[in-house]
Amino acid sequence: HCAMKRQNVRTLSLVVCTFTYLLIGAAVFDSLESQTEAKRWEFLQVLFTILIIDIGIRIKLCFHAVAVKNNFVKKYNVSTEDYRMIEIVIIENKPHKAGPQWKFAGAFYFATVVLAMIGYGHSTPTTVAGKLFTMCYAMVGIPLGLVMFQSIGERLNKFASVIIRRAKRASGARCTDATEMNLMLATGMLSSIIITTGAAVFSRYEGWSYFDSFYYCFVTLTTIGFGDYVALQNDQALTNKPGYVALSLVFILFGLAVVAASINLLVLRFMTMQAEDAKRDEQDAQN
Amino acid sequence: HCAMKRQNVRTLSLVVCTFTYLLIGAAVFDSLESQTEAKRWEFLQVLFTILIIDIGIRIKLCFHAVAVKNNFVKKYNVSTEDYRMIEIVIIENKPHKAGPQWKFAGAFYFATVVLAMIGYGHSTPTTVAGKLFTMCYAMVGIPLGLVMFQSIGERLNKFASVIIRRAKRASGARCTDATEMNLMLATGMLSSIIITTGAAVFSRYEGWSYFDSFYYCFVTLTTIGFGDYVALQNDQALTNKPGYVALSLVFILFGLAVVAASINLLVLRFMTMQAEDAKRDEQDAQN
Ligand SMILES: [K+]
Ligand SMILES: [K+]
Repeated sequence: HCAMKRQNVRTLSLVVCTFTYLLIGAAVFDSLESQTEAKRWEFLQVLFTILIIDIGIRIKLCFHAVAVKNNFVKKYNVSTEDYRMIEIVIIENKPHKAGPQWKFAGAFYFATVVLAMIGYGHSTPTTVAGKLFTMCYAMVGIPLGLVMFQSIGERLNKFASVIIRRAKRASGARCTDATEMNLMLATGMLSSIIITTGAAVFSRYEGWSYFDSFYYCFVTLTTIGFGDYVALQNDQALTNKPGYVALSLVFILFGLAVVAASINLLVLRFMTMQAEDAKRDEQDAQN
Repeated sequence: HCAMKRQNVRTLSLVVCTFTYLLIGAAVFDSLESQTEAKRWEFLQVLFTILIIDIGIRIKLCFHAVAVKNNFVKKYNVSTEDYRMIEIVIIENKPHKAGPQWKFAGAFYFATVVLAMIGYGHSTPTTVAGKLFTMCYAMVGIPLGLVMFQSIGERLNKFASVIIRRAKRASGARCTDATEMNLMLATGMLSSIIITTGAAVFSRYEGWSYFDSFYYCFVTLTTIGFGDYVALQNDQALTNKPGYVALSLVFILFGLAVVAASINLLVLRFMTMQAEDAKRDEQDAQN
């Protein structure tokens, strides 16, 4: 089938285009934001040191504060460790824990997050040039990403329908057609497998509970991307764990393609319904 | 035209459905999260008071810290006010400034942010029940939102094509058809008007620079939603400025519909192209 090949080639070239675009984006974001980040990084490290010294002094000298603290701890039934945690959480700088966000791996992650419209917000451009480039980048990247995901989704649906047809034929069913219901079930099942597997993996690597990890995967693959849980932000994973970085990116990109396959079935059906109505109207108007 | 009415009725009923769904979501989120928030709120207020006292004591007693601070200020060329700002930013709790996030207006805002897949992350569910409901809510809400926005977008395109046709006829053009290029230009222009107007409004209300405000509008209407800038998070706007809340929500919902109109033209065209290829393949296979 030559025509079949044409669609595969189109999908493949979209994937290549998107990856090239992500690489370019990563390089530009790196060059735009890395320097500012490095400066801020140094600044925060010094600030952090000062605050640690401050806390030390405070604990030694400030008896009044300790009294107030004890009172607080008693009244709200917080354990002393909890109070310590609160202090640390307030003072601790999250970027400190996550490591640099705009070195190549981080910049690539950011470009992916923009192109897929997830927008965690764990790192955002701080320079005017960075913000400007983000907008231009999204302007081209988002349609490119949409078309690519839809294209892969459509190929996945096609692939699923071929498999379903074969399975039906093998089982000797009377009707060997893959109905839309069958396809929806198939993509739904594939989505569930990806989310549950992804949740297990992230739960292990990020130290989240399985439920929280599932919530993270769901929020990511629906492209909501709250940013309350963000992968690759612990133990400087972006610089130290290239394998895990690759795994996370593959999870996001493949997962989105599968979700796109479901949405392709659902929304495309509505859109074509609406378009067909419009066409019929025009024909009615002409007659 | 009876058929014309049918599509309008469908779009309108989708809008009504979506608003009802948002109202229900707001009510549930309010009941699930408000209590936990209120507790945390009280907790933070006490913590805040303690920290203010701590700072007062620190400033009076901790000469060593002052020396370190002065050294830091000199070395990094930070003004003393800047240092004060940093201290305040670290200690200040953002929710404190924004006011309660899960009272009805805030919960409605959150439901909108989920349904439109923006996901700023300015407030996220903290209870297990809240997270669970968010997932169920998104599962139905996102397809509903997608179909509604696409539906409004399609109606907008139809409306634009009618206007373009009339304008062409009035100007006595030879070809009175509204081409796809014309439509793209029209939706592109409408999008620009909405973003530039929106940027002006938010810049005024939120105290952002025009550029930052434009960046916010762009990031919102592309549904990236980083959350580095979030409207309605100042001066307890969610509780104190109902008019501004309504304006922001209308901006988001109408803006997204216009963007959906552009994407409808762009992506739908690619998707139907792909679908037509598939159909042709099948016909080829049958012959
Ligand atoms: K998003
Ligand atoms: K987001």
